[in-house]
Amino acid sequence: MEQVAARRPLVHCITNYVTVGDVANMVLACGGSPIMADDPAEVEEITAICDGLALNTGTLNARTIPSMLAAGRTANRLGRPVVLDPVGAGASRLRTETVRQLLEQVRFTVIRGNSSEMRVVAQQQPAGASRGVDAGAGDATSEQNLDQVVRGAKELAGRTGAVVAVTGAIDVVAGPQRAYIIRNGHPMMERITGTGCMLTGVVAAWCAANPQDPLRAAAAAVCAMGLCGQLAWEQAQREGGGVGLMRIHLADWMGKLTSAKLEEGRQVELG
Amino acid sequence: MEQVAARRPLVHCITNYVTVGDVANMVLACGGSPIMADDPAEVEEITAICDGLALNTGTLNARTIPSMLAAGRTANRLGRPVVLDPVGAGASRLRTETVRQLLEQVRFTVIRGNSSEMRVVAQQQPAGASRGVDAGAGDATSEQNLDQVVRGAKELAGRTGAVVAVTGAIDVVAGPQRAYIIRNGHPMMERITGTGCMLTGVVAAWCAANPQDPLRAAAAAVCAMGLCGQLAWEQAQREGGGVGLMRIHLADWMGKLTSAKLEEGRQVELG
Amino acid sequence: MEQVAARRPLVHCITNYVTVGDVANMVLACGGSPIMADDPAEVEEITAICDGLALNTGTLNARTIPSMLAAGRTANRLGRPVVLDPVGAGASRLRTETVRQLLEQVRFTVIRGNSSEMRVVAQQQPAGASRGVDAGAGDATSEQNLDQVVRGAKELAGRTGAVVAVTGAIDVVAGPQRAYIIRNGHPMMERITGTGCMLTGVVAAWCAANPQDPLRAAAAAVCAMGLCGQLAWEQAQREGGGVGLMRIHLADWMGKLTSAKLEEGRQVELG
Repeated sequence: MEQVAARRPLVHCITNYVTVGDVANMVLACGGSPIMADDPAEVEEITAICDGLALNTGTLNARTIPSMLAAGRTANRLGRPVVLDPVGAGASRLRTETVRQLLEQVRFTVIRGNSSEMRVVAQQQPAGASRGVDAGAGDATSEQNLDQVVRGAKELAGRTGAVVAVTGAIDVVAGPQRAYIIRNGHPMMERITGTGCMLTGVVAAWCAANPQDPLRAAAAAVCAMGLCGQLAWEQAQREGGGVGLMRIHLADWMGKLTSAKLEEGRQVELG
Repeated sequence: MEQVAARRPLVHCITNYVTVGDVANMVLACGGSPIMADDPAEVEEITAICDGLALNTGTLNARTIPSMLAAGRTANRLGRPVVLDPVGAGASRLRTETVRQLLEQVRFTVIRGNSSEMRVVAQQQPAGASRGVDAGAGDATSEQNLDQVVRGAKELAGRTGAVVAVTGAIDVVAGPQRAYIIRNGHPMMERITGTGCMLTGVVAAWCAANPQDPLRAAAAAVCAMGLCGQLAWEQAQREGGGVGLMRIHLADWMGKLTSAKLEEGRQVELG
Repeated sequence: MEQVAARRPLVHCITNYVTVGDVANMVLACGGSPIMADDPAEVEEITAICDGLALNTGTLNARTIPSMLAAGRTANRLGRPVVLDPVGAGASRLRTETVRQLLEQVRFTVIRGNSSEMRVVAQQQPAGASRGVDAGAGDATSEQNLDQVVRGAKELAGRTGAVVAVTGAIDVVAGPQRAYIIRNGHPMMERITGTGCMLTGVVAAWCAANPQDPLRAAAAAVCAMGLCGQLAWEQAQREGGGVGLMRIHLADWMGKLTSAKLEEGRQVELG
């Protein structure tokens, strides 16, 4: 976190238009500086002036798919961290196929998705079985299937060379050898659109500030987002609010989070 | 409302990029699960995995118009409810013409707009007379012209086969025979962008959960949104806030609304 | 301000999709009525029904660039105020080149940007030296270089015929002869995405209501936004919130601002 504050990393985001404003505000809140640009005519230049890149496949279209591929290849060439958020992978052939192309042409530093999306990424699930952009109930990580999720995440990390983050009620952030099991977060976070997209922005900013250790940077980002969700819900409840106010306090808490607070509130174990 | 909570309907939204995040959050708050997708290459598949579809003509473009038509036809083929929000109909030929095409090629379950837009839908008004995306003053529903609005809405419902919702200071939700006159809501809702778009999302979610009775589902959604607006403004005022805080509390209240609270707060009569 | 309340000017915005919802809400809060439309097939008609136009080069693309040019020329032909926000000018050739084309083909009433963007506009800086969408540290307006910024702004105003607003820690709003130096605002405004875009919307609304005096209208808008930022941060702090809550209160305060409050809180001097 100190690295982020010190470096104020510029993060290029090609992300869906549903949650793009929340992603920008969250990147700012976590210490980064976001820039959104998705036209093929400028993405390579924008990636080149940035410290990291986040690619998100929500509301993708014929114009933005080549932009994602070009930006990803540029980041690879320049050695900048690239994070993939395969939103809706499995929900349509276009998204699944785009994720496949991205995995083929771009080396990712971190891949972060919900359990359904990550199963598509791991090709453990045929296209079409996802439930929209939310994780299917059968895919959710639970105490029962946790060992299996950890094993799958490590295996996928080994195959792709990327840190693999499967987020949900329990989050797993894994490299080929080591995995963090994270129990921060609050169930109401699911009722706010874009908590996943925002987390991806934070992961990208923190990896951009700590390119030498993406596993720890990603795990810290996942803890931080979950902890802010807990604090935001508590505060919203105290103030007589609900999910609307929670969304606002989520950004509030990210902006106020200190290393000490994160250290104290994180619920992590090695898996 | 119980149906929505039980079914958690997936709602495919092709909606403008101005208010899309607020629509997504409102669909979540009212018990649905939103998915936004607007590329011709994926909309039919996305519609097919969803329980309902919402089409909104704000910020439409050459790429999204065929997407709306294709998604609408797919929903019709599969028997899923489709809601039309003719944002800005009458403000440009492109919007008026798109609305015309949509009405020609898609059977709508509900059409919801302000009085100016609904006049264009009813072809009672030549293109160009709308005042942007807000209702023109001369079109507003008042106690004076209420009977006429109710008659017009019923007539349009008869002609289109859709439930017709003309929303404003007084809301009219009509089938061919029966109409609900709803006096919930607060004038400050006009000062928040997208209250109409958000309402359309709620209508789509509630119709998706109650496809057998779209008239009552739509009327309940209109009551709920109006009631949440009243509660949100009261709370914002109590807390020393204004329209910004009201917007947040609107989602808060939708997330907290119970059947009992709606029953108690609704201001409906038959027309 | 009285003019805005009385006229409720319609403002056509072609603006980036990151902050578009916040811009719409801010235009409403400051007394205007926003309409967003960016397809070449409708922009000229939309501009023609509006009282003012705001063009913003964030997330521009191959489809929206001709729309901006066409809308700008239409506004010029009809004598409506046009405001340019050259977001990210200098960050990519596409943005710099688009700004150049806009300046060549459209007469602007006001040009508002941060110091890095305005240096690109003034061609004092080669393309590529900007730091994303935020001002570079070396460009920031300070007490040390204030005289120089004021001189540059006046000179640019003379050359372009537009009111020139260079905003940052200290804001300068200049015509060829006269400049206002404005010290309202709060450093935390930088940590919210889109405060610049929102200000551009307010400038466009206030110029649309006061087309005869764009210099004073723009200066008043800059004061108002800064003052609302101060009030919003104070209130967020008092309530135990941070940047998230500040963003909400920014719109709250704009909606509640009166001429008397603005008069009392403004920190302006002539330069």
